[in-house]
Amino acid sequence: MKETQTVPNGFLFSTVEAAIKKPGRKDLALILADRSAVVAGVFTTNKVKAAPVRLCMKRVRSGKGRGIVVNSGNANACTGRQGAEDALEMAERPSSLLGLRPEEMLVCSTGVIGTPLPMQRIRPALDALVGGIGSSAIQDVAAAIMTTDTFPKIVAGKAKIGKGEVVITGICKGAGMIAPRMATMLGFIMTDAAIERKALSAALKHAVRASFNRITIDGDMSTNDTVLIMANGAAGNPLITAGTKAYRSFSDALFEVTYDLARLVVKDGEGATKTVEIDIRNAATDGQAEKGAFAVANSLLVKTAIYGNDANWGRIMSALGYSGISLDQDKVDITLNGVMIARRGLGTGRDSEANAALNREEVSVVIDLHLGKGKAKVLTCDLTESYIKINAEYRT
Amino acid sequence: MKETQTVPNGFLFSTVEAAIKKPGRKDLALILADRSAVVAGVFTTNKVKAAPVRLCMKRVRSGKGRGIVVNSGNANACTGRQGAEDALEMAERPSSLLGLRPEEMLVCSTGVIGTPLPMQRIRPALDALVGGIGSSAIQDVAAAIMTTDTFPKIVAGKAKIGKGEVVITGICKGAGMIAPRMATMLGFIMTDAAIERKALSAALKHAVRASFNRITIDGDMSTNDTVLIMANGAAGNPLITAGTKAYRSFSDALFEVTYDLARLVVKDGEGATKTVEIDIRNAATDGQAEKGAFAVANSLLVKTAIYGNDANWGRIMSALGYSGISLDQDKVDITLNGVMIARRGLGTGRDSEANAALNREEVSVVIDLHLGKGKAKVLTCDLTESYIKINAEYRT
Repeated sequence: MKETQTVPNGFLFSTVEAAIKKPGRKDLALILADRSAVVAGVFTTNKVKAAPVRLCMKRVRSGKGRGIVVNSGNANACTGRQGAEDALEMAERPSSLLGLRPEEMLVCSTGVIGTPLPMQRIRPALDALVGGIGSSAIQDVAAAIMTTDTFPKIVAGKAKIGKGEVVITGICKGAGMIAPRMATMLGFIMTDAAIERKALSAALKHAVRASFNRITIDGDMSTNDTVLIMANGAAGNPLITAGTKAYRSFSDALFEVTYDLARLVVKDGEGATKTVEIDIRNAATDGQAEKGAFAVANSLLVKTAIYGNDANWGRIMSALGYSGISLDQDKVDITLNGVMIARRGLGTGRDSEANAALNREEVSVVIDLHLGKGKAKVLTCDLTESYIKINAEYRT
Repeated sequence: MKETQTVPNGFLFSTVEAAIKKPGRKDLALILADRSAVVAGVFTTNKVKAAPVRLCMKRVRSGKGRGIVVNSGNANACTGRQGAEDALEMAERPSSLLGLRPEEMLVCSTGVIGTPLPMQRIRPALDALVGGIGSSAIQDVAAAIMTTDTFPKIVAGKAKIGKGEVVITGICKGAGMIAPRMATMLGFIMTDAAIERKALSAALKHAVRASFNRITIDGDMSTNDTVLIMANGAAGNPLITAGTKAYRSFSDALFEVTYDLARLVVKDGEGATKTVEIDIRNAATDGQAEKGAFAVANSLLVKTAIYGNDANWGRIMSALGYSGISLDQDKVDITLNGVMIARRGLGTGRDSEANAALNREEVSVVIDLHLGKGKAKVLTCDLTESYIKINAEYRT
C-alpha cells in the first residue's frame, strides 16, 4: 500500500448531504481542478448505460474538463429522458455557479437503478456543494461515494518525470461481489502531471485493463461503471507524450495506483472474508489463461469451498473443464497457498494440510496447465452468507 | 405432477449401503431390465469427464444394455487410471454374477471429485446388490442416488401407442444450485416401450434440450452429468420408429417426464426457497431469448433480490444489458408475478405491490423485449444463505 495522504496540487474537494437515499451521510461530492485539466475515461460495456455514463462518454471526447460531480444512493440508470435531463442539471448548476461551461463538468452516479434522482433535494445541495469547495479532504469524497463499501479506498503514487516528480492519487468505490456480477465500480484519479491527452488516455486504458478489468468479467459490468482521470499539469513538468521514458514512468505509476485500488475493492467485496488470487500458468495462450482464471474465480462452488477452508480441488478442475479452454486434465497441477493438492490431474492426498493452509485472509490458487506459455492472474474473493444478506436486503 | 407410483413392466431394482462417503444410508443402486433393452444417453459437455461418464459414452454407442449401477458419495472424477479401472470393475462384478456381458452394464457416480472410490467397501456391496435384485422399489433407487437433495425425485407418465399405452418413469438427483455452476445431475428413465434405437436417442435429446438443459448453461455442466434411458419393449407395442404418430406421442410424454423432473430439481436447489421462471418474449430470435434468460437466471443480484422479496428490476435490466443480446432499453417491459414493474424501460412505481407479489414460492419473471418473435423460458431458483452453508461445508 502507498501512503494515502498525498494529494496532487491544484485539486479542491467538497462534500455535502443531499439525503438521496437516506439521511445522515454525505452523498454528494465535487472534485474540482483549479485550472483546465486533461481528462480521459473508461466506461462500462453494459448495453444498458446510466444517464451520467452516456453524458460522460460524450464529454470526455473533448479531452478537457474541470470537475466531477458524483452522488451515491441512486444510479440514475433506467430513468429515461428525465434521467438524462437530471444528469445535465447536475453538471449545469455547479458549472454556472462556478462560471464554467457545463461541458467542463463530468457527472457520475451510483446506487439503486430505476428510481429518478430526488432533484428537489439535490438542487439546493448542489449549491451548498459549490459553496463549500475546498472545505473537504479527498477522504471525505472517498467516503461520500461509498454504497455497500465498508471503508473508503484511496491510493497515492508518484512518478519520476525528468528531474521532478508528479503525484497520482486515486479513490474508488467497491464493486459488490465484483465477480461474476459486478455492482457499480467508480474510480476517480487525479494527477498534477502535465500530459498529452492521447498519452493520458492510453495510460488509463492500459492501467484499467490489468487492474480493474482483472477483477471482473469483460462485458459483465454494471450500468454505471466509470473510471475517470484528470491531469491538471500543476506539477509543471515537461509535457509527457506517448512513447517516451516519461510516459512509461507515468504509466507504470498509474498502473500501480489502479492495481492497489483494485485489490482494495476485492478486499472489501460484499461479505468477503478472503482475497483470492487465481494464477494460471502455462496455458496455451495468455487469453486462454485469463478465460480459465475467470471461470475458476467466478465459480460459486470454488468461492464457497475457499470460504469453508475446504481444499476441494475437484471444483477447480470442473470449472477449468467447462471454461472452454484447451485442457489436458492429466497434466494439471493445483497448488493452494503453497500446498500442492493435485499433481498431473490426481489428488496428492495432502487434504488436511491444504485445508489448514486455506485458513488465511489471502488465498493463492496456482494452476499449472503444462500446455504452453500463457499466463494470467485474476483477483476475487470468497462467497459468504453475508453476501446474500447484503444483497437480499439492499433496498429494504 | 404425474402419479409417481407407476413403474414400467420388466425393471428390477436393488439398493445397498456401501458406506462410500459416510455410513448409515443406501448409496449403491442397480437398475436392471429383465431383457435386453434399447439404451440412449446424454452426457456432460465438460472437458473434465468422470471415469464412469467416459465408460458410458462408449457403451451407449451399441444402443443396447441391461442395467445401470450407480453410486452416490463419490464422483469417481479426476481419479486417473485407477478411476477408469474402478468404473470397469463396478460394471464387471455385477455383470459376471448375473451372467451378462460387462458391456451390457452402465455405470454412474456422483459426489466428491478427486478421491478414489473405496473399492474395498464397494466390492462386497456389489455382490449384495446383485443378491438383492428385485427387493427394492424405484423410490429406494431415487433415494440412494441423492447427495444434497432433500427429497427423492420420481415422475411417471404414459404415452398412447396405437391401441395400447406405454409407461415412462424417470428418477433423478438434483443439481446443487443448478445455475450457474451445476453440481452433478443424474437422470435415469425407464420405459416398457418397444422403440427403435435412433428414435429413442432422438426423443431423449429433444426432451433434455427443453428440460434439463433449460435449467443450466450449455457447456457449464459438471464432470458427471448423465441422463440415461432404457426401453425394454415389455409393453409389447408395435415398434416405434422415427417420424411416426407413435413417435410423437412417445416423445411428448418423455418430454413431460423430463420437464417435471427438471422442475423438481429446481425446486430442490440447494438452499432454495423459491422456483423462478424467466420468460423472455419478443426477442430478436429464440437463441437470443434463451441467452438473455440465462443471464437473468444466473445473476446473483437477481437471485438474492428475489430471495429478499425485492422487486429490484434494475438488476434484471443490468443482466440483460451485459448478456450480449440485442436490446433497446427503452422498449423493455418487466412483469413480476403479474405486476408490471417496468414499462418501456421505466419504473411504473408499483414497487410495494411487486415486492408483496414476490412473497410466494413460485416466481414468474416475464420480460418483453418488443424486438422480434424470439422466446424462451428458463427455470432457476433463488440464492440464500443456506446455499453458502451447504457448499462451504460439503466435504466437512
